[in-house]
Amino acid sequence: MNYRFEIAYDGSRYEGWQRQKKTEKTIQGKIEAVLSRMEERPVEIQGAGRTDAGVHALCQTANARLDSSKEPEEIRRYLNRYLPEDIEILKVSRVDDRFHSRFGAVGKRYVYRIGTDDRKDVFRRKYLFHLGEELDTDAMQRAAARLTGTHDFRSFCGNPRMKKSTVRTITRLEVVREEHQVKLVFEGDGFLQYMIRILAGTLMEVGQHLRPAESMEEILAAMDRTAAGPTAPACGLCLERVFYPEDIRRTENKENGGGENGEG
Amino acid sequence: MNYRFEIAYDGSRYEGWQRQKKTEKTIQGKIEAVLSRMEERPVEIQGAGRTDAGVHALCQTANARLDSSKEPEEIRRYLNRYLPEDIEILKVSRVDDRFHSRFGAVGKRYVYRIGTDDRKDVFRRKYLFHLGEELDTDAMQRAAARLTGTHDFRSFCGNPRMKKSTVRTITRLEVVREEHQVKLVFEGDGFLQYMIRILAGTLMEVGQHLRPAESMEEILAAMDRTAAGPTAPACGLCLERVFYPEDIRRTENKENGGGENGEG
Repeated sequence: MNYRFEIAYDGSRYEGWQRQKKTEKTIQGKIEAVLSRMEERPVEIQGAGRTDAGVHALCQTANARLDSSKEPEEIRRYLNRYLPEDIEILKVSRVDDRFHSRFGAVGKRYVYRIGTDDRKDVFRRKYLFHLGEELDTDAMQRAAARLTGTHDFRSFCGNPRMKKSTVRTITRLEVVREEHQVKLVFEGDGFLQYMIRILAGTLMEVGQHLRPAESMEEILAAMDRTAAGPTAPACGLCLERVFYPEDIRRTENKENGGGENGEG
Repeated sequence: MNYRFEIAYDGSRYEGWQRQKKTEKTIQGKIEAVLSRMEERPVEIQGAGRTDAGVHALCQTANARLDSSKEPEEIRRYLNRYLPEDIEILKVSRVDDRFHSRFGAVGKRYVYRIGTDDRKDVFRRKYLFHLGEELDTDAMQRAAARLTGTHDFRSFCGNPRMKKSTVRTITRLEVVREEHQVKLVFEGDGFLQYMIRILAGTLMEVGQHLRPAESMEEILAAMDRTAAGPTAPACGLCLERVFYPEDIRRTENKENGGGENGEG
């Protein structure tokens, strides 16, 4: 039986989502250890977004095949009981056998948070990057508009040996000024390695007037990582949501007054 | 010169506000170390609320005498540069020589947060006590009303050898239901050792129907710690604000359209 998991985590203590041989400190590794204990056999779980070391998730999505006859809610409770306190299973549901968290995802929303005043903000310090400087958000928004859409994002890719296509579509890139912080909201069909953090680092430089908003086309055209800004620190980044056609259909059905919807 | 400090801290890693000989892990100790380094002589800082180990502060108030000719803003920056990242100086101001953070305070506001659903809440887990159970907030509010006012709170005092008066006035005790949590807001002229956490523990039992709201008078009359409920865990508690007559006068002046006000 195929199960879908929605997961929140504070990534501060971890070497990222993806299981690694050299360390036990990965989110995937921790969840697999508890699932394997529950199932009394090795279990693999596939996550939609392979978040890097130090990156957080408000709602990561994953799936795993379990023989378990347990109810989803029972599985959720079991996992939350044995997982560390910085990983939380928000929801477990049975899904169609064809559901794959990564290949089935049609989009993701990431948020990057920048502390702009000189507050340390002791209660939120682990969930934002503290720049401690005001940013010109109008310039940043102009640059963001030039990055939205379908482009070859090779200049914003952290992997210089990337063989596959580096063309991606950003459907939303918003610069939101809030109290004490600037929030960057990224939505797109998929993101290259470090892409969001390089975009954030580049947009910060625009906001600091270190490069003009109008230079985005040049950076894209350069097809060269060194043309873009620095990779912004991991702690400011959070995977907020993963989008699936199934969820969108379900929402549309609800909005049209549609009734119950089978798994899909 | 007398300086006033407003301070936020995440108390998780500390043995409380008050300096101790046996450990360096106190907020007062950390701040004094940096002030002493700045002044090149031992400096003492007095806090208004001696928060216990693990208790947080959104805005603790303290004062210290400095020879420094430095501007308040300069002192603030110096402190924030050298203090650990979980202690933040929000504001520094020069104050009248007579200002004493503790003896001059006329009231304090503390908030106690209780997680009532089965969420771990990875991002806020250190700032609330996770009970994981719904509470009857109507009953809690009825009990709270019976505790508001001037009473001898000996039954709610953690120090059995307390020689001084245990009479205190609670001016506000509100039970607020929020998403995922119940928040208890305490305002009063002063609180005994563990008093708020014992009040919180007792109110939780009322919310769980383990004791009736109407039993508060009995508990107060017993003058015995064992009559009250358990001491709720420290992590849920936060010192939100300290009240001074000077601030209240200043606010009133502002509201009456009054102009600049000298230090007071």
